[in-house]
Amino acid sequence: MIDATLRFIGTVRSELRDRKDAPKNESEGAPPAAIVLDPAYLEGLDGLAIGQEIFVLTWLHLSDRDVLKVHPRNNKTIPKRGVFSTRSPARPNPIGQHRVRITDIEDGGTVHVDALEALDGTPVVDIKPAGRPYMSPSATD
Amino acid sequence: MIDATLRFIGTVRSELRDRKDAPKNESEGAPPAAIVLDPAYLEGLDGLAIGQEIFVLTWLHLSDRDVLKVHPRNNKTIPKRGVFSTRSPARPNPIGQHRVRITDIEDGGTVHVDALEALDGTPVVDIKPAGRPYMSPSATD
Repeated sequence: MIDATLRFIGTVRSELRDRKDAPKNESEGAPPAAIVLDPAYLEGLDGLAIGQEIFVLTWLHLSDRDVLKVHPRNNKTIPKRGVFSTRSPARPNPIGQHRVRITDIEDGGTVHVDALEALDGTPVVDIKPAGRPYMSPSATD
Repeated sequence: MIDATLRFIGTVRSELRDRKDAPKNESEGAPPAAIVLDPAYLEGLDGLAIGQEIFVLTWLHLSDRDVLKVHPRNNKTIPKRGVFSTRSPARPNPIGQHRVRITDIEDGGTVHVDALEALDGTPVVDIKPAGRPYMSPSATD
């Protein structure tokens, strides 16, 4: 058997507290937010830097996992489409994928980002560098 | 309790059969591959089109989930860094994130893509549109 149970590495802290307040995309006014890392995973942050772009993967735990077609952007005037052609949180595995920029990293493992479309309390499951592999300036010496 | 167990929506079919043959990034010569969707999820593909760029999320099931620091690109001459600053498959949740282009979609639910860095048999957990939300040409009428 394959172990396919996610481990939560941290939690989103955000002023977004209700699904009806959440914008549909980062580009539509998502607020700054923070990822409070579980201390057990602190070492994993080593090498991340302020200013860097990252993907934050979240587990959108309030989503319906049994829906395969949705109205895009929840707009009933648009015909339903398959969830894999949309970014709807309703999908078999509600993994949120957020491209954000790091604005601060606290010693205790709290990572601040510029704009994140996820409710306060959303579990975080991964952080990855975005764009080209990140090289520290000293690595090019 | 939050249900955080992934559902496998399909499987990668690829000529890559051994980890030592796998390139480190799509840009380094990953071969074309196919995603064979589990028929139960077929409806979810509706709206995807040939030529479109997508993110394929995989579950890199052979990875070590208990590692928090790695040598980037498995190069022992580079100091270890936290896994969240790398794209190493070794990480608490080994979710592979692959940006690819659709080259064909078979009626039965097999999606062919141009270049994918994942071994044959790797479980697929999500497909999302990449870049701007995809609008079919007719939607702009």
